[in-house]
Amino acid sequence: MKGSCQCGAVRYEVTGKVDHVSHCHCSMCRKLQGALFVSFGGVARDDLKVEGRESLREYRSSDAISRRFCATCGGHVFAETPEDGDTVFLCLGSLDQGEAPDHDPASERHIFWESRARWHDPGDGAERVEGFGET
Amino acid sequence: MKGSCQCGAVRYEVTGKVDHVSHCHCSMCRKLQGALFVSFGGVARDDLKVEGRESLREYRSSDAISRRFCATCGGHVFAETPEDGDTVFLCLGSLDQGEAPDHDPASERHIFWESRARWHDPGDGAERVEGFGET
Repeated sequence: MKGSCQCGAVRYEVTGKVDHVSHCHCSMCRKLQGALFVSFGGVARDDLKVEGRESLREYRSSDAISRRFCATCGGHVFAETPEDGDTVFLCLGSLDQGEAPDHDPASERHIFWESRARWHDPGDGAERVEGFGET
Repeated sequence: MKGSCQCGAVRYEVTGKVDHVSHCHCSMCRKLQGALFVSFGGVARDDLKVEGRESLREYRSSDAISRRFCATCGGHVFAETPEDGDTVFLCLGSLDQGEAPDHDPASERHIFWESRARWHDPGDGAERVEGFGET
């Protein structure tokens, strides 16, 4: 699977499986990416190759999570968790056209549902959980 | 209505009505904001007050649209269209917790539906249109 930021300065390729997909409704993700929710897919760090890392900026949104975005176009590509260095969370909107994660669709969840923008209901059938749900 | 980027360097307040809400599935919005679609609300420029403009970066994603994001946290707050200087398109995910646009919910549309990430169906009842739909 391939993806990139919008201007193409940062490009990535994933050679392994997407572990799970979560649609996060927390206020941090919403304000960082300006969307009603942000869809992440977990991949093994060893399966991710990144070109153009020098164009990435880092923002530590919490003790647990570090966000990576392109300094030129502001494109959000992934998030990393210093405590779990083996997993990188791809911002799935940054996948190239036609690409799709290969997760089990039944495992998709809306997380931090209690923080959602209440004026819009996604309407799909994925499970809703508070916080990270059961881990 | 108030909103901001995640780190708070850029803060805004809207004193008028949100003209319409569109959920954009185009590849540019997806790659810029790393989400499966980006929800915008149109507001009159004169109704928008912004603090911290000096923290904003600009990225011209097309001839028509200029994106504004925070240089520190990468937070996307709004988009502007040089040809229609009277309207600013808020990234509605950046609204503060509990805020909601005051548009007519029946007017919400999914735009650039043909470019969507096909592995996820939003599932809500809003109209789907190709490109900008009828304007």
